[in-house]
Amino acid sequence: MESTIVNDIDIFQRYQQIRKQTEVICEPLNPEDYVVQPVEQVSPPKWHLAHTTWFFETFLLNNYKPGYQVFHADYNYLFNSYYESIGKRALRTDRGNITRPGVEEVKEYRRYVDEHLLNFLSESSLSAECYKVLEIGIHHEQQHQELLVTDIKYILGHNPVFPAYFDKQPELSGNPLPLEFLEVPEGIYRVGHQGTGFCFDNELSCHQIYLDAFRVMNRLITNSEFQEFISAGGYQKFQYWLMEGWEWVKSNDIKAPLYWHYINDDWHAYNLRGLESLDPNAPVTHISFYEADAFARWKGLRLPTEFEWEVACKMHQPEASTAAGFLEDGNFNPGASRNGNLQFLGDAWEWTGSPYRPYPGFDQTEGALGEYNGKFMINQMVLRGGSCATARNHIRHTYRNFFHPHLRWQFTGIRLAAPTE
Amino acid sequence: MESTIVNDIDIFQRYQQIRKQTEVICEPLNPEDYVVQPVEQVSPPKWHLAHTTWFFETFLLNNYKPGYQVFHADYNYLFNSYYESIGKRALRTDRGNITRPGVEEVKEYRRYVDEHLLNFLSESSLSAECYKVLEIGIHHEQQHQELLVTDIKYILGHNPVFPAYFDKQPELSGNPLPLEFLEVPEGIYRVGHQGTGFCFDNELSCHQIYLDAFRVMNRLITNSEFQEFISAGGYQKFQYWLMEGWEWVKSNDIKAPLYWHYINDDWHAYNLRGLESLDPNAPVTHISFYEADAFARWKGLRLPTEFEWEVACKMHQPEASTAAGFLEDGNFNPGASRNGNLQFLGDAWEWTGSPYRPYPGFDQTEGALGEYNGKFMINQMVLRGGSCATARNHIRHTYRNFFHPHLRWQFTGIRLAAPTE
Amino acid sequence: MESTIVNDIDIFQRYQQIRKQTEVICEPLNPEDYVVQPVEQVSPPKWHLAHTTWFFETFLLNNYKPGYQVFHADYNYLFNSYYESIGKRALRTDRGNITRPGVEEVKEYRRYVDEHLLNFLSESSLSAECYKVLEIGIHHEQQHQELLVTDIKYILGHNPVFPAYFDKQPELSGNPLPLEFLEVPEGIYRVGHQGTGFCFDNELSCHQIYLDAFRVMNRLITNSEFQEFISAGGYQKFQYWLMEGWEWVKSNDIKAPLYWHYINDDWHAYNLRGLESLDPNAPVTHISFYEADAFARWKGLRLPTEFEWEVACKMHQPEASTAAGFLEDGNFNPGASRNGNLQFLGDAWEWTGSPYRPYPGFDQTEGALGEYNGKFMINQMVLRGGSCATARNHIRHTYRNFFHPHLRWQFTGIRLAAPTE
Amino acid sequence: MESTIVNDIDIFQRYQQIRKQTEVICEPLNPEDYVVQPVEQVSPPKWHLAHTTWFFETFLLNNYKPGYQVFHADYNYLFNSYYESIGKRALRTDRGNITRPGVEEVKEYRRYVDEHLLNFLSESSLSAECYKVLEIGIHHEQQHQELLVTDIKYILGHNPVFPAYFDKQPELSGNPLPLEFLEVPEGIYRVGHQGTGFCFDNELSCHQIYLDAFRVMNRLITNSEFQEFISAGGYQKFQYWLMEGWEWVKSNDIKAPLYWHYINDDWHAYNLRGLESLDPNAPVTHISFYEADAFARWKGLRLPTEFEWEVACKMHQPEASTAAGFLEDGNFNPGASRNGNLQFLGDAWEWTGSPYRPYPGFDQTEGALGEYNGKFMINQMVLRGGSCATARNHIRHTYRNFFHPHLRWQFTGIRLAAPTE
Repeated sequence: MESTIVNDIDIFQRYQQIRKQTEVICEPLNPEDYVVQPVEQVSPPKWHLAHTTWFFETFLLNNYKPGYQVFHADYNYLFNSYYESIGKRALRTDRGNITRPGVEEVKEYRRYVDEHLLNFLSESSLSAECYKVLEIGIHHEQQHQELLVTDIKYILGHNPVFPAYFDKQPELSGNPLPLEFLEVPEGIYRVGHQGTGFCFDNELSCHQIYLDAFRVMNRLITNSEFQEFISAGGYQKFQYWLMEGWEWVKSNDIKAPLYWHYINDDWHAYNLRGLESLDPNAPVTHISFYEADAFARWKGLRLPTEFEWEVACKMHQPEASTAAGFLEDGNFNPGASRNGNLQFLGDAWEWTGSPYRPYPGFDQTEGALGEYNGKFMINQMVLRGGSCATARNHIRHTYRNFFHPHLRWQFTGIRLAAPTE
Repeated sequence: MESTIVNDIDIFQRYQQIRKQTEVICEPLNPEDYVVQPVEQVSPPKWHLAHTTWFFETFLLNNYKPGYQVFHADYNYLFNSYYESIGKRALRTDRGNITRPGVEEVKEYRRYVDEHLLNFLSESSLSAECYKVLEIGIHHEQQHQELLVTDIKYILGHNPVFPAYFDKQPELSGNPLPLEFLEVPEGIYRVGHQGTGFCFDNELSCHQIYLDAFRVMNRLITNSEFQEFISAGGYQKFQYWLMEGWEWVKSNDIKAPLYWHYINDDWHAYNLRGLESLDPNAPVTHISFYEADAFARWKGLRLPTEFEWEVACKMHQPEASTAAGFLEDGNFNPGASRNGNLQFLGDAWEWTGSPYRPYPGFDQTEGALGEYNGKFMINQMVLRGGSCATARNHIRHTYRNFFHPHLRWQFTGIRLAAPTE
Repeated sequence: MESTIVNDIDIFQRYQQIRKQTEVICEPLNPEDYVVQPVEQVSPPKWHLAHTTWFFETFLLNNYKPGYQVFHADYNYLFNSYYESIGKRALRTDRGNITRPGVEEVKEYRRYVDEHLLNFLSESSLSAECYKVLEIGIHHEQQHQELLVTDIKYILGHNPVFPAYFDKQPELSGNPLPLEFLEVPEGIYRVGHQGTGFCFDNELSCHQIYLDAFRVMNRLITNSEFQEFISAGGYQKFQYWLMEGWEWVKSNDIKAPLYWHYINDDWHAYNLRGLESLDPNAPVTHISFYEADAFARWKGLRLPTEFEWEVACKMHQPEASTAAGFLEDGNFNPGASRNGNLQFLGDAWEWTGSPYRPYPGFDQTEGALGEYNGKFMINQMVLRGGSCATARNHIRHTYRNFFHPHLRWQFTGIRLAAPTE
Repeated sequence: MESTIVNDIDIFQRYQQIRKQTEVICEPLNPEDYVVQPVEQVSPPKWHLAHTTWFFETFLLNNYKPGYQVFHADYNYLFNSYYESIGKRALRTDRGNITRPGVEEVKEYRRYVDEHLLNFLSESSLSAECYKVLEIGIHHEQQHQELLVTDIKYILGHNPVFPAYFDKQPELSGNPLPLEFLEVPEGIYRVGHQGTGFCFDNELSCHQIYLDAFRVMNRLITNSEFQEFISAGGYQKFQYWLMEGWEWVKSNDIKAPLYWHYINDDWHAYNLRGLESLDPNAPVTHISFYEADAFARWKGLRLPTEFEWEVACKMHQPEASTAAGFLEDGNFNPGASRNGNLQFLGDAWEWTGSPYRPYPGFDQTEGALGEYNGKFMINQMVLRGGSCATARNHIRHTYRNFFHPHLRWQFTGIRLAAPTE
């Protein structure tokens, strides 16, 4: 890689803002909340605070700042997530057993690395290589901000006393847009990231695909629409389900989306304000791919592929709506589609019908950062569009999120598609 | 469905040939060999004999022959594989515990159904609907012939005394074709089944796709080429592996393809003749998708997608080579690519880089036969081209086989691809 | 060990009788029945035939007959049950996957070993050491005869078509003895094996114990008495259960003894004649220790300890009743207590309240045969008295059988005790 | 139960002391340390604080104080350990996921219950029934003090950075007593609790047993003696192990007691001061029953039964030695046997060869407190004598502790016995 010198004042500010944002998310927590890992995929908030810091320390300071002393020799072992290249690491399932370092020590770790990093940035011009790692580190931390929100929700929302994270008043969620189809004509389209802006390696290379004409809904499926599926016996009829989905339903006794509770003849849902009556107009979230797929089959429709989604989004909602919910809005809960917001970006991640696989020209980065995306490209499904826990400047039309089809602790929702008649 | 009357003498003969073929495969077995299920995916041979018969009884005789009496009231419970629509069924994992009915009774069951079915066919003209079910039943039984071969291989090949299934002499396996790339130009191609011949629902609908120019190898990877991967430490280096593949390698202590044994400083492999020295020129088989993918990464190449494979096959090997190995050849072991055989069809199923998902216009059949393919379209990878255990008239360019990425008891192999430079 | 020469014509006859008896038990089986292992503790009948033979080959012929050639080099691997000292062995859980050698080859193995052993016995006088091993081998095979009966019952009784093993007519099972208590006074008693006859090492050494006065029932609990426990909600009330028993009930959804089926408003039970109406007067069998213990607590009583049982048996039923059922009677099903039979010996193994631990002077045999009993003395409960599948000349007052508390595939029953008031 | 009025000033003071003692143990903890449950048997310290309080609230205040208002309606669900009679409870495995109530709220819960309980005690004379429950509650809390120490040790000792709990200086641990045998003659002995002092129901009833003459060692086995077992290949030789112990060794790759680490050619052990060189003279602790039993077999000796232990202790060490280590000494680590201390009481719990079963006259308490001990009497082994984490006034000669044979997170050690020659 050429080592052009980069002068980007903005990135210093962004670094500081993002680091600050992470800590703001954690402010309402008690020390006890920072520690636990109730299921494998939910990491302790303390771990997120430390791991994002370890990322900058390991990939930037260790590699590029001569004479840098790590904050603590054991942290590489404790806070490496999955980078085999970087050496041994604690078992993922042990994250919730590690009480020391405590929250205060982890915050000190954050200050230490921030100070050294800002010194490093101010002392020298930034090589293109460093700039790229710094940029990845910032986006990496934004990804963990989203995980922080959903992991905190899981930790508090699975506590039998349903504690509130904050006492924010709910926004009134008005009537959603009437359901309609948006049309996309047959054609050859370019998909994947173009241009010079930041993207992850899994969005490359930009390439052509052919699409038949299709239609896609103008907003996300709402809670009340999903209730109809439940009322129609959707969780009891194998016809709607993939075989592995049906086994998942039966062996986990699934009867509703995660966080839904049927109390006194009415559906309630936990959100970060506590346990509340279900908002009928908000998009359904916290569903697995299996549920999204079964819902679509029940409707006689299907999920869009990731490319159909990308093309439709670029065509119909090239800019994120100001009515959409993002991390910065601080609701951590999606709202109804208001003011013509088509909800492609923000509110809820949309399950697509596409498995997560490399693009034709995918070229895995050399070294440890090559482990960032490529090695997960099996048995997972692509989600598009970001959610109410995604930073507004983190999301793109070409952004590919991915989860195993049974997982539902993220803000995951449904948009339906169909061939053009 | 319209009920055009079909007169197809040929299908009666095909029915009888296929039924006979199934029994020929079982002839070398002892009664004890028919019963066991050493792992979940390997069914007892006796179960295959009965289940294929149950298929004709349930979907043809029960539905279309007035007054038909089933052979035994409990067989619907015992020999239903996965059709939820047909009622309760024995657990898949219990197949290997069922000692009664015995082999002789199952053979009687076959004769009973054959007799009634042939009577039914001869008595009346066949409606198009019946014809279609009969056609599916025949292809269904051919699929189970392949499973019979691979399940028998598993049962005998995992016995510590390595019994031989037959004493056939091995064909001399000469030098394979020198490795070269075949080119396919960029373009819009039609994929999926066209025309009026039989196909499974998962091959429909025929549709257009866009492909960049690419290259694909002119034959399968051989055992000796795979040995180089082992010698280079391929099973010890995480860099080549998908994360779930790497976990699979470590937790199962995988060091070589299934059936390979390192004895007295040399690789041997079990085939149906017994344990023999590894044939260096034959295609490597019995590997998982993870191993195929890791091998490709080690080579700096990749697996073709299922559409790249289909287009390349139609372009370069429109007809199955007479040099290729199929079920009817009775070797049940793939040979080297001789006489210019490109090995697209026969010899070994080829792992593609494509997850198994529905085609854009996929329209699941109504009723129980709709469960045939559609409900499996998650977490599995597509394989193409058939193997030495596939019937020659069963395979097509558009045929989509599918397995979970860790499975390797089938004759699964590797062909590599790359973008055109 | 001294090598006194033993001349015991009788043991040659016993050897032949016992070997024959084993084969008689298997006569009604089809070849398919010999192969399967539906759960870990149930071994394939073929395995029992081979393993008992391996025992004589390994511990007698290999050790004492010069120049003996084993029948097959791999059998030591295949048919060693748990003797670490003898070398590597097939996994216990793989026994049901081994289709070769087949039944005929195993029978040939039996003939081969029988012939060599009888030659060996006739050629030379038998050293005391050999005699002891031969004696153990005979008793070992008798133990496997009992397992053969219960394993065959499990294999056929878990088949959805409930095949009969034989068509023997059931004996009429008259009214059982009225329930009464037998008294045993306080005192110091000797327990454990005395005298020169054969016993297993776990019955030694004979030693003194002190017992308070107690009472024990004069027969086994019947099926109709156990039905009352079910009717009283015994399986739904945690109060009667040990904690691990309660978890076992809930996680396995236990509602009745093994082999009981509630059909058309009535209890039925599978026995080797097929599925029949429950005999109310026969002893309840096929229950776990947890069920026996819960039943006792529901009655306000308790199980006897193994020493209470032994003392009471010697005092009240010093000889096995001719009315009792044993293996040789060939019913393989216990009957009501008739003609004053107290049922201490035969009919059903009686769960005691005693964990299986070594006696004070227990001295484990040197070498491989030391693994026979001692290493199992943890987490198992002692059962006393033999069952309808135990050979009449195999059982003793001091005989200690043992199983994990959740197992119920043996003919296990209940006798209750209480302190003297 | 009669309601004699009890005036026992002392019990009020004991209540306050014990409640205070619990909190003192927790003082060195960070808030994060209070929350986690690294393995099922280790409960979060916060849970212990709350559960012991719930015990007084539920069994005393709720039952006997008219008009008592519980502190929080959900705590009965959260802090019930295993009492089925008291209603639904949180899953044991979820204890470590509950971050709210936090430590401060739990401490407030403690203050609330203490205040109400002390008011209740001062307002009225105490009925015998209340007195008994109060007494049990106090002993119950002492049991949890021991668990607090061992659970804290587990939480900190399994952290890769090995944090210290305190910085107490280690006592110099001098040479232990030379190993000798103490003799106990043959005879009839009384065992079990006698007299009017407190005991748990499992120590009743007092009864007679007969013992042959035996010998028992005059102190616990030391770390250096256990090292010899390791050096002799004790963990590699199946001969020394019970079969389930051998499987436990192999499947968990056990090579040394818990907390031992082999670093730079030397054994170290974690204790609450941090990771230190192993003290050769201190008793070996943190071993399973399997290891104790294997060590004994390696030595050609055996573990004493619980009655041998009890008789020997009463005969040779009727009073706890002042040289012994108990909870109040605050070392939380056992020391060498100094000043003639025979170590029967304190230092380490001693595995006996006796399974945990009811005494002949065991009479389970009615109601919920009847669940205290009786329902655990299966598959566990008895330990005797208390440890360095046991309160000095909590232990008795007749005290029966019990754990499953594979567990080793308690301070468990070895004393050996043999028959008198």
